[in-house]
Amino acid sequence: MSIDLDALYRDLHQHPELSFQETRTAGIAAGHLRDLGLEVEDSVGITGVVGILRNGDGPVVWARADMDALPVEELTGLPYASTATGIDPDGNTVPIMHACGHDMHVTAMIGAVERLVAEQSAWSGTLVVLIQPAEEYGAGAKAMLDAGLLNRLPKPDVVLGQHVTPLPAGVIGVRPGPQMAAADGITVTLHGRGGHGSRPHTTIDPVVMAAATVMRLQTIASRELDPREVGVVTVGSIHAGTKSNIIPADATLALSLRYPDDAARAQIIAAVERVVRAEAAASGAEREPEFRTEHTLPPTINDAEATARVTAALERALGEGTVIDPGMFTGSEDVSWFARDAGVPLVFWFWGGVDPEVFAQAKAAGTLSSSIPTNHSAYFAPVMHPTIEVGVTAMATAVREFLD
Amino acid sequence: MSIDLDALYRDLHQHPELSFQETRTAGIAAGHLRDLGLEVEDSVGITGVVGILRNGDGPVVWARADMDALPVEELTGLPYASTATGIDPDGNTVPIMHACGHDMHVTAMIGAVERLVAEQSAWSGTLVVLIQPAEEYGAGAKAMLDAGLLNRLPKPDVVLGQHVTPLPAGVIGVRPGPQMAAADGITVTLHGRGGHGSRPHTTIDPVVMAAATVMRLQTIASRELDPREVGVVTVGSIHAGTKSNIIPADATLALSLRYPDDAARAQIIAAVERVVRAEAAASGAEREPEFRTEHTLPPTINDAEATARVTAALERALGEGTVIDPGMFTGSEDVSWFARDAGVPLVFWFWGGVDPEVFAQAKAAGTLSSSIPTNHSAYFAPVMHPTIEVGVTAMATAVREFLD
Amino acid sequence: MSIDLDALYRDLHQHPELSFQETRTAGIAAGHLRDLGLEVEDSVGITGVVGILRNGDGPVVWARADMDALPVEELTGLPYASTATGIDPDGNTVPIMHACGHDMHVTAMIGAVERLVAEQSAWSGTLVVLIQPAEEYGAGAKAMLDAGLLNRLPKPDVVLGQHVTPLPAGVIGVRPGPQMAAADGITVTLHGRGGHGSRPHTTIDPVVMAAATVMRLQTIASRELDPREVGVVTVGSIHAGTKSNIIPADATLALSLRYPDDAARAQIIAAVERVVRAEAAASGAEREPEFRTEHTLPPTINDAEATARVTAALERALGEGTVIDPGMFTGSEDVSWFARDAGVPLVFWFWGGVDPEVFAQAKAAGTLSSSIPTNHSAYFAPVMHPTIEVGVTAMATAVREFLD
Amino acid sequence: MSIDLDALYRDLHQHPELSFQETRTAGIAAGHLRDLGLEVEDSVGITGVVGILRNGDGPVVWARADMDALPVEELTGLPYASTATGIDPDGNTVPIMHACGHDMHVTAMIGAVERLVAEQSAWSGTLVVLIQPAEEYGAGAKAMLDAGLLNRLPKPDVVLGQHVTPLPAGVIGVRPGPQMAAADGITVTLHGRGGHGSRPHTTIDPVVMAAATVMRLQTIASRELDPREVGVVTVGSIHAGTKSNIIPADATLALSLRYPDDAARAQIIAAVERVVRAEAAASGAEREPEFRTEHTLPPTINDAEATARVTAALERALGEGTVIDPGMFTGSEDVSWFARDAGVPLVFWFWGGVDPEVFAQAKAAGTLSSSIPTNHSAYFAPVMHPTIEVGVTAMATAVREFLD
Repeated sequence: MSIDLDALYRDLHQHPELSFQETRTAGIAAGHLRDLGLEVEDSVGITGVVGILRNGDGPVVWARADMDALPVEELTGLPYASTATGIDPDGNTVPIMHACGHDMHVTAMIGAVERLVAEQSAWSGTLVVLIQPAEEYGAGAKAMLDAGLLNRLPKPDVVLGQHVTPLPAGVIGVRPGPQMAAADGITVTLHGRGGHGSRPHTTIDPVVMAAATVMRLQTIASRELDPREVGVVTVGSIHAGTKSNIIPADATLALSLRYPDDAARAQIIAAVERVVRAEAAASGAEREPEFRTEHTLPPTINDAEATARVTAALERALGEGTVIDPGMFTGSEDVSWFARDAGVPLVFWFWGGVDPEVFAQAKAAGTLSSSIPTNHSAYFAPVMHPTIEVGVTAMATAVREFLD
Repeated sequence: MSIDLDALYRDLHQHPELSFQETRTAGIAAGHLRDLGLEVEDSVGITGVVGILRNGDGPVVWARADMDALPVEELTGLPYASTATGIDPDGNTVPIMHACGHDMHVTAMIGAVERLVAEQSAWSGTLVVLIQPAEEYGAGAKAMLDAGLLNRLPKPDVVLGQHVTPLPAGVIGVRPGPQMAAADGITVTLHGRGGHGSRPHTTIDPVVMAAATVMRLQTIASRELDPREVGVVTVGSIHAGTKSNIIPADATLALSLRYPDDAARAQIIAAVERVVRAEAAASGAEREPEFRTEHTLPPTINDAEATARVTAALERALGEGTVIDPGMFTGSEDVSWFARDAGVPLVFWFWGGVDPEVFAQAKAAGTLSSSIPTNHSAYFAPVMHPTIEVGVTAMATAVREFLD
Repeated sequence: MSIDLDALYRDLHQHPELSFQETRTAGIAAGHLRDLGLEVEDSVGITGVVGILRNGDGPVVWARADMDALPVEELTGLPYASTATGIDPDGNTVPIMHACGHDMHVTAMIGAVERLVAEQSAWSGTLVVLIQPAEEYGAGAKAMLDAGLLNRLPKPDVVLGQHVTPLPAGVIGVRPGPQMAAADGITVTLHGRGGHGSRPHTTIDPVVMAAATVMRLQTIASRELDPREVGVVTVGSIHAGTKSNIIPADATLALSLRYPDDAARAQIIAAVERVVRAEAAASGAEREPEFRTEHTLPPTINDAEATARVTAALERALGEGTVIDPGMFTGSEDVSWFARDAGVPLVFWFWGGVDPEVFAQAKAAGTLSSSIPTNHSAYFAPVMHPTIEVGVTAMATAVREFLD
Repeated sequence: MSIDLDALYRDLHQHPELSFQETRTAGIAAGHLRDLGLEVEDSVGITGVVGILRNGDGPVVWARADMDALPVEELTGLPYASTATGIDPDGNTVPIMHACGHDMHVTAMIGAVERLVAEQSAWSGTLVVLIQPAEEYGAGAKAMLDAGLLNRLPKPDVVLGQHVTPLPAGVIGVRPGPQMAAADGITVTLHGRGGHGSRPHTTIDPVVMAAATVMRLQTIASRELDPREVGVVTVGSIHAGTKSNIIPADATLALSLRYPDDAARAQIIAAVERVVRAEAAASGAEREPEFRTEHTLPPTINDAEATARVTAALERALGEGTVIDPGMFTGSEDVSWFARDAGVPLVFWFWGGVDPEVFAQAKAAGTLSSSIPTNHSAYFAPVMHPTIEVGVTAMATAVREFLD
């Protein structure tokens, strides 16, 4: 009797968990992998799960799915929408939602493993399944590797991963070379001097310092980066103060930086630090701002040869014209660490989750970017079908490309 | 046996309570007032306390002390520093501190009532003591009045109040006419469109919208208000987003506006709304920003004649040269509502809480505004002596000026 | 036969001259003074004129009128509107207009001298008339003093001056103590690195540097200066670049600072320099910005006793209720230098130039500040009557107050 | 006896002329073309020159060189540096410099024609030489076409052009498809209300309005445009005011917009207008801002097949590896109009002008973008050799590719 992937997906979607807190999700995934006969180890890198299917001689494929959700309040209105809350690292109670589709990743991976087990006689080699935590922190892959994966597991010949995205359901997007940007997450703390809201002249206002900093940071993308290259400086959060009539002492900014390569990283980080320090100086800050790098994600670069093999295999499996070059994405991933640390090729592809008709209408209306919710939106909601089936087929097909 | 005011002050300081949650403080104050023989009513305006001392024919004086504390983490290092926390209106756990000296106000009021009771044979009339909640919300005086004070209590001939401030201990600051600015507290919610931090072009970034708004709001004070008049636009808090790589959908600003009179209020509020709406439009916001007025505080205007009487009485009681004109303060108070609603004169004065030697040194060094912590600072700490005694004497003296 | 003051005023108005280029105006004034029998010296401080009327023993009064115009294109539509142009210090051809009413000052002074000559038998002492250039540069008074005035002329007992302003015609505004703010004019040059408009990443954009600087300078008034004191930071001009597709190398800002006293001057200049340097640093400027102080004007402080005498005399001459306290003005003047360098009292007053009915209507409509053109506006236009007569009477009366 | 191209180049460099004022340059070019035997027409499109070399049957090639210079003060320190000045369209006297290398374009074109004339027996067809004015205004090509070129001249089969750029001398950069961005030049006039610098509250400060607008315009590139596409919003000039103490009434900005295609043009122009209007509204402007499109340049898109032919021919002529894909340039050109209006293929390539050793050192030091002056810089200075020879060879070779 086969696994009910629809029920699995709805269940995961209704029970999203924050990064490194995915114990329920991990438990469910581990349970299915065990049921399917894999050797399973859990709590790898805090909450990660590793499943190994040894099927005779042959190459080793590491297939990775990430499983964490986001502190976003779901607004999809779906019958299986999340109403979950959790405690974020600052101790605040926050709503949680699978706003990046990792529930779909886990579902498709379980379905793919089920199929690969069923087809076991047709291929040989070793499949290592990685159910990874905390991709959203950019920390989960490193956490699993830090748990000694490369020493303990069969060394991979290739690393595979996939991500659901606002392409039409049925379509695969993949390209050789740069597929996703590199990224840093940086927290900046600005120090002013607090006081009464009616006496600004006795204070150093960190709200104004922060606002001026945000405006000046815009000029890095608009003036300092080569317009022909991908470069993004996003201030994803800004927090200061408690009441209207108290000028607080500090402000914090959380920055997300995207860039194509290491040279651009050096340039963009130097620019951020220069701007932040200068704006603190403009305010007459008595204490230097503080910078903390929360995570660094390498560029996601697909191996040319391995990608060509996967592309061809997926075209055969899903139909001609279903595999497109989606261009480079400005988003980032930590899946690369598995391949980089092992020194082996990576293939990472996107698969569509948007009703093809809805997609076609939005394209015709020129509203693709405004009407189709993107990953991390409170309205992000892949259609279940054929998204689940395509995700299963894509992952199983890609694995078999290397193990047949 | 007299009340131990030092112990009372330290106890109140160590147990600060947020606005409308001052049940412990109110209980202690009500207890002392009852012990001193006053008719006491509590839970007036949620947590307010009214004490009435009827002492024969004569005028009626309303003497008010406010009692709430602030969501500030105390950094004074005092042995009796607060480590208290509480739940703010948003449900967050926050540190609490008597950063505005209301503990001193309550202590001095209890001491003054004790002295007035002891001197009962020397004066006649009625003293109404108001221990007011939620001055920091600008809501407590209104809450007490809304409980029907003017119908139920003896109608006042004058309203008195005092506030501890960074003048030298021993010094009183009071002036006829405008003594404190009027104020509004306004919450602004800006609506953008959320999305992934790496795809800003699919979003309407509320962090940038908020930052541009904060910078533009600065121009109200710098360009639109008459430089000869008091006018302040403070953004006391700014909040948006949860993580570096999610562009949030909304941002909220809490504004404190200070202005000298009603015409200026109309001008400043119109300017704030114009700027906020325009900056939302500049961002291409799909939804109008929202404004919520949290409180409106009238200007604190001292009655000329009554203030002259109090000034002379305090000079006699505290020594020649101890009463100065401190100029108009840009801060605001809700004490005026008692006098405005009753249609009677108000006298509201400041008394110093800074060690005179420390004050003199700071003045000589030109560091008054930077080295002496002001109200609402995490370092605000009146010296206990002679601040308590001067507060007691000042209030008792002013009351007797009208009841002798 | 008396001087036709209307014709004189219209002539001066139609022939405005820029600072230190007032040769025609000076020639006309010198001619009238000579015709009236004064000893006249011209070219004092480049284009200034000094006239001396020795009329027996007694005190010495220095009476000053300034005569320069502004690089403003007149938009009044008056029949006698200026269409003059001139060459500014940068060599540019600019329109010129008497947008600050100095033509009225000269006219009233000539009329006052005519009257004083006619009344010569009724007073005794010495009148020194100063027709001063370049008040708008804040440099003319110093230039005349640098020409040795204090050594060569009878030392004054008092210095008098007057300025036409948007009060109702017939009204005098004067107050003892601070009458006008102090001021600095500062030119700031920001250095970037130029290049092609399509390649911003190869440049350091001085336009963005200048814009960020202007926005940040707003926070000096909004956050750093005591809201209870007069403080203004105006960027009166900004210039950078020649074409849309060339990013220029430099930008220049011309700042006007207003402040009440020397302590505030130190604070405000330090803040300006801090902000400008920090914004250059935020841009990564390779060269420090440059600051040039164009002029420094002292505060205009009226001597209490001399002002009381003038106030009383003007009330007698012009009618009760015609002399009001206009409050402190945020504008600045260089007339103080004459009194400061001589160490004698100054009295400087304003006289109204607005049709009283128009003024009353604007006041009733609450549009005083928006509908009545102020000094330096392209629409500034005192009504000729009774402004000329009141100016003549005011100056003659004040002079005689000290010489009768 | 051959033309002395070195002398020609130095002469043109020392005598730069502003757009549509290139009479001396045009005269020199026309003279050489006539001397070489071409039919020459001058004053085509104000100052343009057309030369026709009919050499038997065959295709028609239009070869274009632009000839105008820029209002930039030359800082190269070269012995043949320009000290020329001219009158710009606003009537201002400005320095002029060949900061974009059009002197090199004319020199190379004359040299190429000389060679083609010498090799006349080896090819057949018609060469039309276009010496175009006012490329910097984006107006010269249109002006020549508006003079009826397409009706009067032999219709082209292909249009060729070349531009000197900071690649190493000896290197050609060319790619099929998008080679340069499209562009608009837009002048924006912001309307405030003027007044005295000390009375900002009576004015609507256009300097602050302009500064806020510049800062907000940065967010178009940083937040609104797809980070994967070329998009630039440059404010190349900003002008407001004349003196520190006069707040002016207006400010003007000159914007240069760069974008890859028509859809992006619509988006970027809508964003600019939205931001500008909103910032005017934020200031409370009483009059709408004004927009004037100074020029619109189409994208420069190289025909794939024709470019492949030129690429191969240049590799053969200049050596293997000398022709590289330089990527898309963010700059813009009006050469496309000739091909677009004629409906024929365009090939437009870059040739290097930097000493190869200097280039190599800068590349090694990572200072390519900061140490090598780019087009429009006051330091832009191609080395004469081998830049002239390579330019001659490239143009002659490309022409013969189509006429052999």
